[in-house]
Amino acid sequence: MFSDRKQLRIPGPTPVPHKVLAAGAGPMANHRGPDFKSQLANILERLKPVFQTENTIIGLTGSGTSAMEAAVANLINPNDSVLVLSGGVFGDRWAQICRAFQADVHVLEYPWGEGIAPEAAADYLRRHSHIKAVFATHNESSTGVLNDIAGIGAAIADFDCLYIVDAVSSLGGVDLKTDEWGIDVVCTASQKCLMAPPGLAFISISNRAKERMKAVSSPRFYLDLQSYLEMLERSETPYTPNISHFYALEEALNIIEAEGLEQIFSRHLLMRDMVRAGISALGLPLLVADQWASPTVTAVKPDFDDVSGFVASLRDDFGVELAGGQGRLAGRVFRIGHMGYATPLDMLTTLAAIETKLGRFGQATAAAEQVWLQTVGG
Amino acid sequence: MFSDRKQLRIPGPTPVPHKVLAAGAGPMANHRGPDFKSQLANILERLKPVFQTENTIIGLTGSGTSAMEAAVANLINPNDSVLVLSGGVFGDRWAQICRAFQADVHVLEYPWGEGIAPEAAADYLRRHSHIKAVFATHNESSTGVLNDIAGIGAAIADFDCLYIVDAVSSLGGVDLKTDEWGIDVVCTASQKCLMAPPGLAFISISNRAKERMKAVSSPRFYLDLQSYLEMLERSETPYTPNISHFYALEEALNIIEAEGLEQIFSRHLLMRDMVRAGISALGLPLLVADQWASPTVTAVKPDFDDVSGFVASLRDDFGVELAGGQGRLAGRVFRIGHMGYATPLDMLTTLAAIETKLGRFGQATAAAEQVWLQTVGG
Repeated sequence: MFSDRKQLRIPGPTPVPHKVLAAGAGPMANHRGPDFKSQLANILERLKPVFQTENTIIGLTGSGTSAMEAAVANLINPNDSVLVLSGGVFGDRWAQICRAFQADVHVLEYPWGEGIAPEAAADYLRRHSHIKAVFATHNESSTGVLNDIAGIGAAIADFDCLYIVDAVSSLGGVDLKTDEWGIDVVCTASQKCLMAPPGLAFISISNRAKERMKAVSSPRFYLDLQSYLEMLERSETPYTPNISHFYALEEALNIIEAEGLEQIFSRHLLMRDMVRAGISALGLPLLVADQWASPTVTAVKPDFDDVSGFVASLRDDFGVELAGGQGRLAGRVFRIGHMGYATPLDMLTTLAAIETKLGRFGQATAAAEQVWLQTVGG
Repeated sequence: MFSDRKQLRIPGPTPVPHKVLAAGAGPMANHRGPDFKSQLANILERLKPVFQTENTIIGLTGSGTSAMEAAVANLINPNDSVLVLSGGVFGDRWAQICRAFQADVHVLEYPWGEGIAPEAAADYLRRHSHIKAVFATHNESSTGVLNDIAGIGAAIADFDCLYIVDAVSSLGGVDLKTDEWGIDVVCTASQKCLMAPPGLAFISISNRAKERMKAVSSPRFYLDLQSYLEMLERSETPYTPNISHFYALEEALNIIEAEGLEQIFSRHLLMRDMVRAGISALGLPLLVADQWASPTVTAVKPDFDDVSGFVASLRDDFGVELAGGQGRLAGRVFRIGHMGYATPLDMLTTLAAIETKLGRFGQATAAAEQVWLQTVGG
């Protein structure tokens, strides 16, 4: 079948709307000329409502991990004590990066598939008064857990430590109130809910974090946020930015603004509920309980052996590209991405492929359609 | 006039061919699926002849500076002594990055606008036996100097130190024999002679450098080349790569292979000679003498005061986008980029705009046309 008609249902990169791809194919520009400078400033300004922040937003030419490293390299000194709240691959990534920068890393580890208890974070800080920063993951895409970032923010608000959140696979698809929830630093990337190709990362920084930055000596150059802040005053970046993806993102922001954040958040919740209803109707176990279920990705832990073969067959025989498991879940789960440029109909085609493969004709789709109709209220 | 008809004559980003832009707008893919994996492996393999190397080539999602930092962070320990050969902004950038990573940095500084004498580098190493790496710039785009990378390589071949070269604004447009000239590490980026948009960087690494890497403790994560080498064995990258730009680069490689490297190198030399003849015919002083003149960018140091105003007028009134000066040359030179997807006709339109602005109708173009006709031998 058409190799470019595969349903891309992995937790990123996500499908990019045609208009966004077309905008990204615009002619090259001088990144230090007046046209691109005003475009860059405008895009970063329009990201603020999506981040729900008044903080400065910096655009980095890199993957989401580059924004995570920027947070660590610019805010953590060697031997600084930090607390990482982890329940999956991306929580662990915070710990790995902090260790690479020689921090004293404390990890509050949660079972993979469960959310983090805000009070446990506060308890930990009470018993370890020297912790300078708390690192959390909004949406743990390796398990499909959405963490209670608001609750953690409230629980740790009285401690003098930075609150740093990885929102790579949530921002722009799931409610994240950066300022209201007291988050100093939010990291995200272009290729998830923002519906652009991978290659840009974004990081918002509070004034408190900007102050802290001045006293940090960790080696950094490409990701030195101070140089980005200085160049931002003239609407430039220190190094040549990914111009094409800024073109693309501008068009993606048009689409996001036209739909509206509230509607976007509802659509993601609906897609989550449809997928979970469909998978449950097939009798396949969901990895995550309802209370923590992610609006952007759902992990399924089937009782059959060859999960990798199942994923490969869905891709090669049925045209739906799912993700396997990561880390200790490799070979044990498959994951369905439902973020960004995705619709309820996409959930039905995905479920249809899965039920066809299993010979359970119509069963998952029927359950998901019921959820859809209830939501639309038709 | 049409804002998208500006002649982009800066030393990068450079104009991107329509076919390359169109390829970059292809639908998004799973970066860990079989299709993209084979595409990635194929592209990195096809880059080897362009690098003129058998060494491993790694693709980074970042600007050229990210590849430069990767070279330093992975190969230099704190307190290691390094020698930087610098005659401009990009030579100085090597020194800045090495200092950020706490190396003991020795700089052999050359006048901006002159090339580095290979023997001086060898002399320096003779007098400082503890130097572990020599950093050089192939094409110093802040001045338009092409350094004698072959000569430096030969002069330092007998010393036990790594030879690391920034070829960001030369590779794919100017002859660079990585293996023959004994270069351990070559850094480049997508948006110069490779004719793709900015957002990808490439770095080639010799076996000697790979060995050295194992003993380096400098903090790094996003740019940790060891993790790229490991993932490369299964044709993947550790973090989500800039998929669209790999699509674009694949098409750019088609164009490069169709023209052929020798022909590409000749075209760049011709464009250089046409620009220099035209500028000289206007009586404007060239910054760099013939022996060091860059095939990809020409700096002009005019005798009039308002160089920035001149550049702005050419852009706003005459539709040609030149670059001003950088660093200590800011406001004192303008630079004409002639690399990548550029032709002799482009040089004539650029010179035509300049001579029109100066009221010297036909004079620069006449001189450049003569050079062209001589070369074509018509």
